[in-house]
Amino acid sequence: MKQEFLEAIQKIRPVNLELEKEAYQHLDNLTKPPRSLGRLEQIAARIYAIQEGECKPYPFRIYTLAADHGVAGKGVSPYPQEVTRQMVLNFLRGGAAINVLCQTCGVELKVVDIGVKGETFPEHPNLIQYKIKPGTGDITQEPAMTEEECLQALCLGINLANQAKQEGIKALGIGEMGIGNTTPSTALYAAYLNLPPQKLTGPGAGLKPEKVKQKAKLIEQALQTHQQTVAGKDPLAILAALGGLEIAGMAGIILGAALNKMPVVIDGFIATASFLASYQLDPKVKEYAFFSHCSAETAHQKILNLLEVRPLLDLDLRLGEGTGAALGLFLLKASANIFNQMATFDSAGVSKAQD
Amino acid sequence: MKQEFLEAIQKIRPVNLELEKEAYQHLDNLTKPPRSLGRLEQIAARIYAIQEGECKPYPFRIYTLAADHGVAGKGVSPYPQEVTRQMVLNFLRGGAAINVLCQTCGVELKVVDIGVKGETFPEHPNLIQYKIKPGTGDITQEPAMTEEECLQALCLGINLANQAKQEGIKALGIGEMGIGNTTPSTALYAAYLNLPPQKLTGPGAGLKPEKVKQKAKLIEQALQTHQQTVAGKDPLAILAALGGLEIAGMAGIILGAALNKMPVVIDGFIATASFLASYQLDPKVKEYAFFSHCSAETAHQKILNLLEVRPLLDLDLRLGEGTGAALGLFLLKASANIFNQMATFDSAGVSKAQD
Repeated sequence: MKQEFLEAIQKIRPVNLELEKEAYQHLDNLTKPPRSLGRLEQIAARIYAIQEGECKPYPFRIYTLAADHGVAGKGVSPYPQEVTRQMVLNFLRGGAAINVLCQTCGVELKVVDIGVKGETFPEHPNLIQYKIKPGTGDITQEPAMTEEECLQALCLGINLANQAKQEGIKALGIGEMGIGNTTPSTALYAAYLNLPPQKLTGPGAGLKPEKVKQKAKLIEQALQTHQQTVAGKDPLAILAALGGLEIAGMAGIILGAALNKMPVVIDGFIATASFLASYQLDPKVKEYAFFSHCSAETAHQKILNLLEVRPLLDLDLRLGEGTGAALGLFLLKASANIFNQMATFDSAGVSKAQD
Repeated sequence: MKQEFLEAIQKIRPVNLELEKEAYQHLDNLTKPPRSLGRLEQIAARIYAIQEGECKPYPFRIYTLAADHGVAGKGVSPYPQEVTRQMVLNFLRGGAAINVLCQTCGVELKVVDIGVKGETFPEHPNLIQYKIKPGTGDITQEPAMTEEECLQALCLGINLANQAKQEGIKALGIGEMGIGNTTPSTALYAAYLNLPPQKLTGPGAGLKPEKVKQKAKLIEQALQTHQQTVAGKDPLAILAALGGLEIAGMAGIILGAALNKMPVVIDGFIATASFLASYQLDPKVKEYAFFSHCSAETAHQKILNLLEVRPLLDLDLRLGEGTGAALGLFLLKASANIFNQMATFDSAGVSKAQD
């Protein structure tokens, strides 16, 4: 499976950023002062480069991946672990924030059980069932996944992107549900970026300050447990040891989006950890990625700065599920509509700037 | 007319901000960690308070007010003055950025000729014709408007808000078109906030650096010409002397929105000058206002800081027309849908946080 995976991602091509110039030639001829729509124009130009000569990013799909975490038993979240499962059912009934924002923003939602504790869910048209295992190992004691399980999750992600492409989807968003998953995400940031967990650890879904300290210590412990793996700097081994099934799955979707030349919108703190893992596997993914928002989770701004990316929105979101990605995809839609639907100076009979 | 205007705005009531607590009681019971949707929840709570017990901000309408400026003859814009008229025609044919973003964001657009140079426009269902005069006086030499004309513009704005309310509109956005109008806006900021024009003056629609210096000098000259008026600190007199017809009209819409207990979304640099004028006339408008974005125009961030408001978006927009307001209204829609459409913990059978 490793061979298959490595061969797949070797096919990722860089975005031809020269095409952005061509996009701006068009944008600068629309009835507005050149570049006066700022980042909307940047988004449109990048989509044009990714799609090699067109700017048609929708229909959209968000994959929200759900999985459980062994470390959740250690009190790293104020919510009981069964909430992962309960929220999947809530997604399928349409009652969660991600349902509302997908509908509002014109995004199709597919929920993926990649590793929720307990049995198979009842079948549902919006649910993809591919439970690799019912939750990860406790990263403070053991690897989250074997390398084989991690590769399964990555390959599933690639396949989800392939499937979306085949079904006519033009851009993807990623989101997650997994009680406790800021803990493995923070561990991954610490491992990949060589940063102290104390400075990265935040309250996640609402942990009290004294418990945040405890959480940081558990992350420290996980890094100790997997010291040798971390020192080895193999991105795949680190993801398997410290990550999560949904985190690896989202990393696969990002790689798959790049493979399929599709824009991919990253959600918040956890999805950015997936991005970082995918970036370690192939830095070319960065050119395909849009960062939807800066999370209210403590270290997200710092990490976005280190990645040298500027998020689209800053709304103090810290929910996950793909909620920020849904809003981000809407901005891709607005940008593309500007590109495709505005009149040119000539067609509208509007005078250009003098001098 | 002054009497009529002053009596009208005396009827503005403060928002009962206590109602936000009631809104949060509901929001905190929805299936997400409390407050994890950050500013979307703040928006929803504020709408609930403004609307006194409901959160139903749409249907939306943006009024884009167009007018010309005497000072445009002094080279303060790279665009010729006839572009104001040409762009109104572009708005009516649907080819401008504001048309595209209104359609994308689900916002109705009404264009208002409040003072475009030249003749009356052909009739159009989306055009409201109420030309107070064909462009203002050159503020470096004379008042932009008489006090009577300024009151006419303010009262028109109030009437536009009243009309929207009667037609079932639930929230408003404001935008403008007027070649040269960053100049009177900057003059108003300097006058109301007692700041030096050199530090506030920016390139507007794309003025070159050497011409920006010239523009700052012209604004300085305008402040000199109207020194006595500025010293008098009467907000209405300052607006008449240094403002613009569309700027006064938008200030009227903001006051009218507050009168009608409607949320109002402010666009960028020029619309914020209108907000400041309305705020000087009645500070209670602030509680009804949402600031859609931080403009790329030089001083906007500084002014938003001085007003102690945090804009919703930061996308380097500097187009005007209401483009930022359209995106801002969409965030009101997303916030309201969260408030109205999500499941509660009880209804969804999801466990709450422990401790």
